[in-house]
Amino acid sequence: MAKGLPTRSENYSEWYNELVKKADLAENSAVRGCMIIKPYGYSIWEKMQRALDDMFKETGHSNAYFPLFIPKSFLSKEASHVEGFAKECAVVTHYRLKNDPDGKGVIVDPEAKLEEELIVRPTSETVIWSTYKNWVQSYRDLPILINQWANVVRWEMRTRIFLRTAEFLWQEGHTAHATQKEAEDETRQMLEIYAQFAEEWMALPVIKGAKTANERFAGAEETLCIEAMMQDGKALQAGTSHFLGQNFAKAFDVKFQDKAGNLEHVWGTSWGVSTRLMGALIMAHSDDNGLVLPPKLAPIQVVIVPIFKGDEQLDAISEKIDPLVKVLKSKKISVKFDKDDQARPGWKFAEYELKGVPVRVAVGMRDLESGTVEVARRDTLEKSVVPIEGLDAYIEQLLEDIQTNIYKKALDFRTENIFKIDTWDDFLVQIEKGGFLSAHWDGTSETEEKIKELTKATIRCIPLDTEEEAGSCVFSGKPSAQRVVFARAY
Amino acid sequence: MAKGLPTRSENYSEWYNELVKKADLAENSAVRGCMIIKPYGYSIWEKMQRALDDMFKETGHSNAYFPLFIPKSFLSKEASHVEGFAKECAVVTHYRLKNDPDGKGVIVDPEAKLEEELIVRPTSETVIWSTYKNWVQSYRDLPILINQWANVVRWEMRTRIFLRTAEFLWQEGHTAHATQKEAEDETRQMLEIYAQFAEEWMALPVIKGAKTANERFAGAEETLCIEAMMQDGKALQAGTSHFLGQNFAKAFDVKFQDKAGNLEHVWGTSWGVSTRLMGALIMAHSDDNGLVLPPKLAPIQVVIVPIFKGDEQLDAISEKIDPLVKVLKSKKISVKFDKDDQARPGWKFAEYELKGVPVRVAVGMRDLESGTVEVARRDTLEKSVVPIEGLDAYIEQLLEDIQTNIYKKALDFRTENIFKIDTWDDFLVQIEKGGFLSAHWDGTSETEEKIKELTKATIRCIPLDTEEEAGSCVFSGKPSAQRVVFARAY
Repeated sequence: MAKGLPTRSENYSEWYNELVKKADLAENSAVRGCMIIKPYGYSIWEKMQRALDDMFKETGHSNAYFPLFIPKSFLSKEASHVEGFAKECAVVTHYRLKNDPDGKGVIVDPEAKLEEELIVRPTSETVIWSTYKNWVQSYRDLPILINQWANVVRWEMRTRIFLRTAEFLWQEGHTAHATQKEAEDETRQMLEIYAQFAEEWMALPVIKGAKTANERFAGAEETLCIEAMMQDGKALQAGTSHFLGQNFAKAFDVKFQDKAGNLEHVWGTSWGVSTRLMGALIMAHSDDNGLVLPPKLAPIQVVIVPIFKGDEQLDAISEKIDPLVKVLKSKKISVKFDKDDQARPGWKFAEYELKGVPVRVAVGMRDLESGTVEVARRDTLEKSVVPIEGLDAYIEQLLEDIQTNIYKKALDFRTENIFKIDTWDDFLVQIEKGGFLSAHWDGTSETEEKIKELTKATIRCIPLDTEEEAGSCVFSGKPSAQRVVFARAY
Repeated sequence: MAKGLPTRSENYSEWYNELVKKADLAENSAVRGCMIIKPYGYSIWEKMQRALDDMFKETGHSNAYFPLFIPKSFLSKEASHVEGFAKECAVVTHYRLKNDPDGKGVIVDPEAKLEEELIVRPTSETVIWSTYKNWVQSYRDLPILINQWANVVRWEMRTRIFLRTAEFLWQEGHTAHATQKEAEDETRQMLEIYAQFAEEWMALPVIKGAKTANERFAGAEETLCIEAMMQDGKALQAGTSHFLGQNFAKAFDVKFQDKAGNLEHVWGTSWGVSTRLMGALIMAHSDDNGLVLPPKLAPIQVVIVPIFKGDEQLDAISEKIDPLVKVLKSKKISVKFDKDDQARPGWKFAEYELKGVPVRVAVGMRDLESGTVEVARRDTLEKSVVPIEGLDAYIEQLLEDIQTNIYKKALDFRTENIFKIDTWDDFLVQIEKGGFLSAHWDGTSETEEKIKELTKATIRCIPLDTEEEAGSCVFSGKPSAQRVVFARAY
């Protein structure tokens, strides 16, 4: 295991915190709850952004930018929305500082008080729907398919780096449609895109489902979500897609003339994923040696470590390896040939393991003689001796294998940790052990809340695409038509 | 000229405002001074971002992310920095709203007052240098070469869309170095990158220079800048690169052990360009018909407008044009084949002219017979009849020609509007006519301020890379070693 990194079994929570720090992903800032995303962490986020952005654009969405600040009165316009966000808002009340007349430093200038306070956006539905009002007159102005990459602020009391921070980065899609069906289809389409991204890029299997009324986005008619399982068996909500009905259109009076000439309220959706995905990525795959990154999101996919003494040996190795580096780069594989002579190979091995580089190639003088190198894969820690001849094709295939294997490992883990639970006694036992509990629920908020109170488990989702199955609620015994997923969650 | 768009000669300022609106680039929001960047405008900004980001990465920089909020006490640590920014800060004082006990709506919860107020970042030197303190111990930790894409807020009293807004988007580079020379080289390198970007991508000729002490960034030892000329003869500062000396290192106690074992303060730079560049792009090239976009930044480079009646004619045209579209796309040329049958060709022509699409191809039934199309270029409004055979290569070349021509036109305009001025009388006459005035200056702030007071002209920069020339100050008559550039500015 990596130096100074607790093992997962010792202390999963500390393992995560230390890993984020030691792998140079992020750190806490001087401002409570706000994080600094360091270059290595940010480069993973950039890869996520690029992949998602391409998927959004392929499905007809455009990016735009709306203000950071929301007038306080806007928040109040949608009743359940303000209820959901008012308690965790950063509020701007003044627009100027001045020198402290009593000494050094600066104070807020009491004369520079805003007439109406501004809220730092916790999400942008209100400011965006107040704008859509001016953009929409006729059915010809619809649909509006807009996404925004932005920072948002929610003043959380208990924060955790990447998972729950006061400021975080995200994308928020906000679409407007002429019909209910079109908006519902959009909601579902974006959920599918999130699921596809999680599985194909993050190697993270997810359960697609609907939230219960209790867990819905404040202002939505329906919230769809993807839920992933972490290695401690807890759930992490990795993305949400909301069908807003006509709620925000009504709150902001957004109407359009349909083909028949009638004035109707517009239908809306919103959907988002955030830097929380970084937390999911780390917690789903990494091990006691450090990060394990799926190749598609790894900033460095291949590191080549020469083992040498003196410039002459390094030159001999470089002569063989430089052309390989060139070929790998031409295949869009990101490769680092680490010629640094200040650090020892063993130190480098540990460092790149900690940072989750998927493939490590070690090559020394004896390897040159035999025409081979040692290839180590990060996911299984297996080492192989591989001919230099054809190494580029070998590595290309290996990266694909690693991507697939990481996904499969996470999927197997999840499969082993989903339990069909049919009695309350079993529920109480299993929830302490962890994992997802697939159980019947009577559909009432009362039961849902009681279960949460007794076990800290919440209904993660009502899975989509599963068959109905008659049964009785695991808690109340009342009839139920479908199993839902219970778990403790991040 | 475009419908409802004032001409530049009628009212340059209104022409700009209306153009921004009519071309769907941006609009003002409900929050004073904060803009909404609409999809068409944002897609230009995205192209700028991509090009700049590539240039930053090629020169060894990485992206990262630092908090939106800055503790008030941080701002005060660098004396001239706080002086420069305290008067235009958005201040967060509370972190919660609550229901108004006296009625409907929400109010700021007085019990949720922050112990220390937070400033919404106007720029991030303070929060970043407070972090670098923890990152730097030894010369081996240097240089740090970091860039951040972010939103910032400066509470400007008079705002103008893109040019001066309360919130704007930008990138801010923040680097830390072991030696003065390395930091100075970095400052100059980034200025060169900005100049290269302006000229090669924006087709905007710029003058590289140094700011006078009066106009320096608050906290910098030296500020380099690029200055561009708009079509009304006014100057626009398009980017700045600051040599910070050891000012922020001293304010935040950032020291490193050098190779000899001595503890030294770190040397710093910072540099940035913002959505202001959008304003520069619009004002430099556009005409009374609308936007003129350089092809390298145009979201749509080529639009093809079919002229047809009924599906049969459209099918016949599509049969010829679809393969062309495919070829253009394979050459990474962004092309739109506008088959919409609701709008007339004439309306489309005006619309794409307004939006600055560099190349328009019109094709009707008679064109098919003759095997030609009509190609119109946006920059000169010239039309040519061109064979369909080989049209892709023709367009490829034409896009390059347009890029070059737009640059040349702006350069010629600037050349015609830079005036060597040697007497105060000439200065007073010319400054009213507009343009850049190249004149001798005695080097004192007193003279600089007096000239500004009398004429509203500021010293835009002391040009780099120009020869020294002995002369006497245009205002005071005192000796001067070099001409500087005076102009009225945005």
